[in-house]
Amino acid sequence: MLEKLKEEVFKANIELPKRGVVIYTWGNVSGIDRETNLVVIKPSGVDYENMKASDMVVVDLDGNVVEGHLKPSSDTPTHIELYKRYKEIGAIVHTHSSHAVMWAQAGKDIPAYGTTHADYFYGNIPCTRKMFENEIKNDYEKETGSVIIETLEERNINPLDIPAVLVHSHGPFTWGKNPAEAVHNTVVLEQVAKMAIMTEVINPNVNKMQQELLDKHYLRKHGKNAYYGQK
Amino acid sequence: MLEKLKEEVFKANIELPKRGVVIYTWGNVSGIDRETNLVVIKPSGVDYENMKASDMVVVDLDGNVVEGHLKPSSDTPTHIELYKRYKEIGAIVHTHSSHAVMWAQAGKDIPAYGTTHADYFYGNIPCTRKMFENEIKNDYEKETGSVIIETLEERNINPLDIPAVLVHSHGPFTWGKNPAEAVHNTVVLEQVAKMAIMTEVINPNVNKMQQELLDKHYLRKHGKNAYYGQK
Amino acid sequence: MLEKLKEEVFKANIELPKRGVVIYTWGNVSGIDRETNLVVIKPSGVDYENMKASDMVVVDLDGNVVEGHLKPSSDTPTHIELYKRYKEIGAIVHTHSSHAVMWAQAGKDIPAYGTTHADYFYGNIPCTRKMFENEIKNDYEKETGSVIIETLEERNINPLDIPAVLVHSHGPFTWGKNPAEAVHNTVVLEQVAKMAIMTEVINPNVNKMQQELLDKHYLRKHGKNAYYGQK
Amino acid sequence: MLEKLKEEVFKANIELPKRGVVIYTWGNVSGIDRETNLVVIKPSGVDYENMKASDMVVVDLDGNVVEGHLKPSSDTPTHIELYKRYKEIGAIVHTHSSHAVMWAQAGKDIPAYGTTHADYFYGNIPCTRKMFENEIKNDYEKETGSVIIETLEERNINPLDIPAVLVHSHGPFTWGKNPAEAVHNTVVLEQVAKMAIMTEVINPNVNKMQQELLDKHYLRKHGKNAYYGQK
Repeated sequence: MLEKLKEEVFKANIELPKRGVVIYTWGNVSGIDRETNLVVIKPSGVDYENMKASDMVVVDLDGNVVEGHLKPSSDTPTHIELYKRYKEIGAIVHTHSSHAVMWAQAGKDIPAYGTTHADYFYGNIPCTRKMFENEIKNDYEKETGSVIIETLEERNINPLDIPAVLVHSHGPFTWGKNPAEAVHNTVVLEQVAKMAIMTEVINPNVNKMQQELLDKHYLRKHGKNAYYGQK
Repeated sequence: MLEKLKEEVFKANIELPKRGVVIYTWGNVSGIDRETNLVVIKPSGVDYENMKASDMVVVDLDGNVVEGHLKPSSDTPTHIELYKRYKEIGAIVHTHSSHAVMWAQAGKDIPAYGTTHADYFYGNIPCTRKMFENEIKNDYEKETGSVIIETLEERNINPLDIPAVLVHSHGPFTWGKNPAEAVHNTVVLEQVAKMAIMTEVINPNVNKMQQELLDKHYLRKHGKNAYYGQK
Repeated sequence: MLEKLKEEVFKANIELPKRGVVIYTWGNVSGIDRETNLVVIKPSGVDYENMKASDMVVVDLDGNVVEGHLKPSSDTPTHIELYKRYKEIGAIVHTHSSHAVMWAQAGKDIPAYGTTHADYFYGNIPCTRKMFENEIKNDYEKETGSVIIETLEERNINPLDIPAVLVHSHGPFTWGKNPAEAVHNTVVLEQVAKMAIMTEVINPNVNKMQQELLDKHYLRKHGKNAYYGQK
Repeated sequence: MLEKLKEEVFKANIELPKRGVVIYTWGNVSGIDRETNLVVIKPSGVDYENMKASDMVVVDLDGNVVEGHLKPSSDTPTHIELYKRYKEIGAIVHTHSSHAVMWAQAGKDIPAYGTTHADYFYGNIPCTRKMFENEIKNDYEKETGSVIIETLEERNINPLDIPAVLVHSHGPFTWGKNPAEAVHNTVVLEQVAKMAIMTEVINPNVNKMQQELLDKHYLRKHGKNAYYGQK
């Protein structure tokens, strides 16, 4: 069942420690098949070294395990909330990558300071509000998805334009059209997060980049007038 | 004698440089066999590259060498103090891992700023007071154990809930139920210490995380209602 | 056509990720043959892992592709502007290397703080002004070259004396007599950028190095009285 | 001639890039044979990858090449000054290791903040004054040695008690009884320099460690009452 997607999700998962954004079991990737509405996701708490494509778990959009011998990631309800709300997303990644977590712990958006940011994220990367006590105590992982959606909606963000969010006091969720792209965005987010910290240390009065430069870089790589790459 | 524990302690020791928390001989792991009250510990000042499981030293709780051709770690009396006081601890690690040492040198607790911290440490990671001159001059390594115990007791800390402490102007001691878990906690401490520094740089007014989020994350991985992982 | 230069440019390109100054496709190297006025440059958006010397693209100084089955780097017009203005330059590198980008995002020159800097760069490494809206909207990559030239001219910089510039809110361009030297300067710039940040953190009142020390170090490695190395 | 020392000096040199304290040709190690008063030193500007033990250069204490087909390191006169003044030194290392250079560029001593420092350096690691213009212009490398000696003498430092110094706006020189120990001290200096920066960031009001703790740690590893290790 969904062998191709399982392989993609598996490869995306093991790419995380190779790229330095995950140690131990601190991350998970899922992908969705939009025809069947089935989600393929990493099993919970399993080491990357010993994981196989066949360990991936298949769940439906109610969170029921449809196939697999292991429990799905404890973050599965968060992934499901995002898949249900945003049809344009094909894959989701959660990590505790160091520099993105630093911003999440600081409770601050990552400002768009330069073209590296603009090449991938069309504006500041938002940090959610703190979650309310009842959201934490009841259906925590599902509510984590809800607070992400609330954040994107309040700011009128199209999720493919800014494919990352920081959950307050927690860490990043990122996404993309497919698992490989979602992991790519995760690695870029970590790099952008790292550079933004020291940008502020060098110049505490730094301003966000110019809107016209943000437009230029984002739009030369995305949308119908893109001219970067071989397409 | 205690071949299985020697192997575990040996493997835990050589995991330290692989995980980037030790260079040269700057660390040691021990484990205790609670039936015989014998402790297996790394020999003093021996390079990780050339060490074998059979180099591990067996000592009793009075610090006498029971087996082994090498001198035990000079920190052995610290380990023994902790084993004697806390029966629930099965293994102890000492390193000079960079970011944990930075906090120890700064003489400050590592505040719980996010869920990465909360997944492993149920509250701030305490830093001891400075040691008194007489503690340093007499039985220094034993007194290091005593000041750790004093710190945990003053704060009513169950050592398995916060399996790490910073000794002021020195560095971290960490522990766990077995050598592998103690090393795991050591690596996590280093990561948490690193992220906490830049959290404060990004937001100098940052507060500790919410208690309810700390509870949620610690308790979803520990205790009888845990639901993370495959158990 | 230009097989030797293609090989040099190819090798210089794949050196970038090895030296840690590029991830994914975030960089490009070109080289010029001054006899034919043809430029060899990396293709746009192609991964370093799968790239071959025969993928290098040959363009003329009007930007026309003379040979090659792929599109040239989107930054080609920037390279061409620099080659046309500075006949002494034989190769150009553009990266988003982390620490150089931090300074570019902060919009600040990298001050000459020590002899590592002075060994390669004969003075501060300049950061351009922000680009004007019309420069960004029309012929952006060509205008990027123009603003680099404007910056060097305003400060009377001989490009081989300070073989690097930071484009504001963007990142570094570096150069040299040949592709290997240009990459070498790129790696040194990254190192110098990293050290300058923490120099200011340690001592917020630090001053630029003494002019006589800058002279000494630069001139013991460059020019007719150089005495460093085996020549 | 001096084959054993050449081998030691060669191995110590290639250890530098492996330990991450040198890139390209940014470092050199020498060793002295006190019976013949001959110094073995790395050749100038030669890459570590292609260097062989037979490339090491033998010079006398007047700086004359006694054996070798290459020019000795341009820093040779600095090494010679130190060997002539301090008979107890058997080997010297110079690098531009990042964090030590940050302190040198900041023009500040590295304060003794913790036991990692105290295990190797019996007090603050001194930074020299700026060199005078005439020292830079005439016999610069020899004068670099003189300013190091001036710094140690003014502070009554026994060079084996604090086997490192920072030359202002430049970088570290370190030493030891033999080449392996000198490189070891170089790697420790880099680690200590790195930890001291963030110690001050975490706690801007941090004080130097207690003298009694400095004594304890230095003296448990050095001198006649040492009890660390297997001796």
